Amino acid sequence: MTVPAKTRLLDSVNSPDDLKGRSRDDLKQIADEVRAEVIEAVSVTGGHLGAGLGVVELTVAIHSVFNTPDDKLIFDVGHQCYPHKILTGRKDRIRTLRQGGGLSGFTKRAESEYDPFGAAHASTSISAGLGFAKARDLAERDNKVVCVIGDGAMSAGMAYEAMNNAGSDASRMLVILNDNDMSIAPPVGAMSHYLSKLVSSRSYRGLRKFAKTIVKPIGLANPARKAEEYLRGFAMGGTMFEELGFYYVGPIDGHDLDVLLPVLENCKAMQTGPVLLHVVTQKGKGYEPAENSADKYHGVAKFNVVTGEQQKSKSGPPSYTKVFAQSLIEEARKDDRIVGITAAMPGGTGLDLFEKEFPDRMFDVGIAEQHAVTFAAGMAADGMKPFAAIYSTFLQRGYDQVVHDVAIQNLPVRFAIDRAGLVGADGPTHAGSFDIGFLGALPGMVCMAAADETELVRMVRTAVEIDDGPSAFRYPRGNGVGVELPLNPQALEIGKGRIVREGTSIAILSYGARLQEALKAAEMLAAQGLSCTVADARFAKPLDKELINRLAKEHEVLLTIEEGARGGFGAFTLEHLAETGALDSGLKIRTLHLPDIFQDQDKPELMYAEAGLDARSIAARAIEALGRGNVQELERLARA
Amino acid sequence: MTVPAKTRLLDSVNSPDDLKGRSRDDLKQIADEVRAEVIEAVSVTGGHLGAGLGVVELTVAIHSVFNTPDDKLIFDVGHQCYPHKILTGRKDRIRTLRQGGGLSGFTKRAESEYDPFGAAHASTSISAGLGFAKARDLAERDNKVVCVIGDGAMSAGMAYEAMNNAGSDASRMLVILNDNDMSIAPPVGAMSHYLSKLVSSRSYRGLRKFAKTIVKPIGLANPARKAEEYLRGFAMGGTMFEELGFYYVGPIDGHDLDVLLPVLENCKAMQTGPVLLHVVTQKGKGYEPAENSADKYHGVAKFNVVTGEQQKSKSGPPSYTKVFAQSLIEEARKDDRIVGITAAMPGGTGLDLFEKEFPDRMFDVGIAEQHAVTFAAGMAADGMKPFAAIYSTFLQRGYDQVVHDVAIQNLPVRFAIDRAGLVGADGPTHAGSFDIGFLGALPGMVCMAAADETELVRMVRTAVEIDDGPSAFRYPRGNGVGVELPLNPQALEIGKGRIVREGTSIAILSYGARLQEALKAAEMLAAQGLSCTVADARFAKPLDKELINRLAKEHEVLLTIEEGARGGFGAFTLEHLAETGALDSGLKIRTLHLPDIFQDQDKPELMYAEAGLDARSIAARAIEALGRGNVQELERLARA
Repeated sequence: MTVPAKTRLLDSVNSPDDLKGRSRDDLKQIADEVRAEVIEAVSVTGGHLGAGLGVVELTVAIHSVFNTPDDKLIFDVGHQCYPHKILTGRKDRIRTLRQGGGLSGFTKRAESEYDPFGAAHASTSISAGLGFAKARDLAERDNKVVCVIGDGAMSAGMAYEAMNNAGSDASRMLVILNDNDMSIAPPVGAMSHYLSKLVSSRSYRGLRKFAKTIVKPIGLANPARKAEEYLRGFAMGGTMFEELGFYYVGPIDGHDLDVLLPVLENCKAMQTGPVLLHVVTQKGKGYEPAENSADKYHGVAKFNVVTGEQQKSKSGPPSYTKVFAQSLIEEARKDDRIVGITAAMPGGTGLDLFEKEFPDRMFDVGIAEQHAVTFAAGMAADGMKPFAAIYSTFLQRGYDQVVHDVAIQNLPVRFAIDRAGLVGADGPTHAGSFDIGFLGALPGMVCMAAADETELVRMVRTAVEIDDGPSAFRYPRGNGVGVELPLNPQALEIGKGRIVREGTSIAILSYGARLQEALKAAEMLAAQGLSCTVADARFAKPLDKELINRLAKEHEVLLTIEEGARGGFGAFTLEHLAETGALDSGLKIRTLHLPDIFQDQDKPELMYAEAGLDARSIAARAIEALGRGNVQELERLARA
Repeated sequence: MTVPAKTRLLDSVNSPDDLKGRSRDDLKQIADEVRAEVIEAVSVTGGHLGAGLGVVELTVAIHSVFNTPDDKLIFDVGHQCYPHKILTGRKDRIRTLRQGGGLSGFTKRAESEYDPFGAAHASTSISAGLGFAKARDLAERDNKVVCVIGDGAMSAGMAYEAMNNAGSDASRMLVILNDNDMSIAPPVGAMSHYLSKLVSSRSYRGLRKFAKTIVKPIGLANPARKAEEYLRGFAMGGTMFEELGFYYVGPIDGHDLDVLLPVLENCKAMQTGPVLLHVVTQKGKGYEPAENSADKYHGVAKFNVVTGEQQKSKSGPPSYTKVFAQSLIEEARKDDRIVGITAAMPGGTGLDLFEKEFPDRMFDVGIAEQHAVTFAAGMAADGMKPFAAIYSTFLQRGYDQVVHDVAIQNLPVRFAIDRAGLVGADGPTHAGSFDIGFLGALPGMVCMAAADETELVRMVRTAVEIDDGPSAFRYPRGNGVGVELPLNPQALEIGKGRIVREGTSIAILSYGARLQEALKAAEMLAAQGLSCTVADARFAKPLDKELINRLAKEHEVLLTIEEGARGGFGAFTLEHLAETGALDSGLKIRTLHLPDIFQDQDKPELMYAEAGLDARSIAARAIEALGRGNVQELERLARA
């Protein structure tokens, strides 16, 4: 697979300028070398592999035809951008991908002028691109705007909203639909069927042969007009995209530079406005283990390049995701009103396991969180018990629906919020930082956070029982702590926390999975003779006011801790204490939460240390509040 | 217009059952009577008029053909539901529409079993309907599901997400597209053009004549099959809806019961799944002043039925909306990088005024808040100064985009947040309750709230100057307080509040337009000999820590007050005070915020009193916290 370094053309490509004027053969070789480089790099770092491999030729072609960074190239989602990063001056750092201090796994404005608009969530590129197009028009510049969006991302309403807007006023921009019939999971929905139909039509089969023989440079006389006439032959006419005001070109083979280059040249020359170029690619292309894998090596651990074998994670406790899925399956066996809903994340949420047992009761609605939430609300209104399993960060997409369709109507939709808190290599775009606050503010919502996997099992049970209003339970990315799972889980009493460790001087009230760190902090404090109570709040809403009052009354110091931004559990606790006058005569209270910055990717434990939410930081905060104890001694204990 | 009461058929219609078996002539008369009743009622109450008048015949037809409430009828937005309320047992209360204690201006589950799913925000009905359809299928029931959605609502991605999902698996449901070529403002976008094209096509013109002569009941033998064959003649074939997996029927005349009734009967009989029935109606139909008005009497004040003349609101200070718009126009005259963005609310946000002066610099993207925000982010990334003017409640629709596309990238998008706080007659679905918390949690966001219209002008100025990151300023519905507007407004110092009144004992720190009530409260307290400082925080982010520290240190009691839910300004203030140890030795602090319920509609001042945010309540809280002063005396003063 690897090309010997000394013959590599890629070594001389330090920016897209170095692609200009190259022969087509050179570009083909460079594409091969980029592919090899991506495979090598990801084998060392882990990361998103399949998506990038699918767009190697497309990326080379775009950068050789368009004049980036003046022309704006906007990748949707951004996890397919590794070839782009290699070609835009970041080759030397490509083996730092997704590492602390290294390159982001997504496009990122702060990283390069070649990333005019960062991404990580899906379906934003056309909106952003239209913004660039309008800004250009107002400034009377003439740069091009190119968006690359996957077919999976086309299920999201946001992409439709943008096309509906762009198509209505003839905005000059190029949207490249990268159709690999795959997002993270196979895409669902009518649009996906429609695209398959376009691709399998005779026009496409005919085109492949046609393109190989006929494609040639267009003469200079009135190039725009000629390009349009030329491309008209490719277009199928009457497509949905044309009804939406786009000029549709395609489908074409996205791995064939002999087709890609002239078609892109022609698209570039067109003065008409918005063009949709339908490019068919293969996710994982050019790396056999990826091509043969069901998920096309969407996201991989470090792997052996020759065999494709991925490094196994150390066996240990099951992941929270899996514990959630298995709990839900257990509950669903007993209650046929339970259904599962995912927005294009069957594997990520564990609902693929649920679907195996209950194929009729699992609904993958595609990348469509707004719809997912209101669809769940509709089912709840008609007597079902829907569990909408959505990552914290993606639930932001459905926030209005949570407010307007679920909370105001007090419908018993259950939100299973995976990836709560910091998530490591995926960085700030995927952090689950805000849900405690934005859900806790809603009247009637029951909010829970799991301290460990046993708690998660009990929260699933509890959510099944809460059938008179909405509820949510959050749990982190990664593995549980290794506690035994209850065979016959009991529901929690709503709004009741628990004391985990009894002490006298300092109280740590934890909401969620920082409980283990809180307990470690308590040990450190105990080693200094400071007696520490540790409690698990379990609920951010309704608050366990009795527990909070008791902790406040019986301790000199009260710390709250949560894996979320300010304005969350700690804030609710403070508002309660203020309201009842419990702060009137003084309380050394500190609310520990995520810092008021977007933290870059790193190992989760390092990120939590940076956030001041590891055991040492917790203990240090307690000592600071108490005004006694020894931080140096603490440092010594922490190192021990 | 009015039909003499004694001859009214409508008087005998107490539920949709009373429509069953009626002659077509009777139904036509009932429709006329419903229309007259809607006009009469809204002339007394004010409210949404045009939308309801447009669906009178459609509503009568649906209730006479379908078996509500077992069949689920879901109105999108819900402001067109007055005829529906009249026909479903709420006739006697129709003159209480939008009044305190009266009927909601929207569909509402708590109000009637005929409202299976409430609404008020647009574009939710297909998602909810699909939920009902799936719940029905799982429960093996055979009720029908009917959604009525306007063409304006079709620009929202959520509707597309739902159709994409419904169309892919042949869910049995009927979506009635109520095409009046009008939402609140004329709809925009490619879909709107597309619908116009469908309607103006020959098939429709032909159909009108066709329908009048050919329509007749379908025989009972294999009715479903016959219905399909029959309807095939109507369908145009190859529409975008068919590409999305819907069976398209139409367009038909939505005011002609001779067409509506048999077509609906046929749709009901169809066993195929999802059907889209395209119905053309006229907003404001049957009431001349409405038909002739540009906005078709979308939302009206009380009016004279004969002349159509609306009651003028008392002249007074200009509305915040208008002050915002005029300030933005002033700024835009000096800075050509300023652009305005609205999601289908040019009039509601005042950007219609901006558009008059800067037609090229105003962008109405349709009901598409997700796109609006990221479109603004794209423009900001390319050097423009976008002002995205979105109501607080609708900004919830774009929350992920605010986080992911604006805040994480630290792009200078300016959010002009109208309708912050309680809004009166529109009730809980339109209250702007949550933005302080959900924006204040975001790193890098500058959050402001205007205490009066002068402050708003200065905040517009300030937002123009904040060009290195995102900012937001909120302001309430309704009129300003009457202060003189600055001709040459100065920007505020970021993160700095101001003292409005100096005192010694009690400090009231107001964020936003409760400042006037805070000042009144201070007067009441002064009358009891309690000296009161009143400050205007101006910023919830960054907090004016110096001001807060000083207020906390120099007063026995500190109240915060805001027009938003808990977890907002007061919570941020508390977290800051806790963090710095300012609570360690005691502070009588109370955070006054909206209560933890969804408040039903009423006069805004009554809603704020219920919320405990009027002057009297503020003063009472201060007295409670202080433990001195006389609440009875306060009551006496409040009545004075």
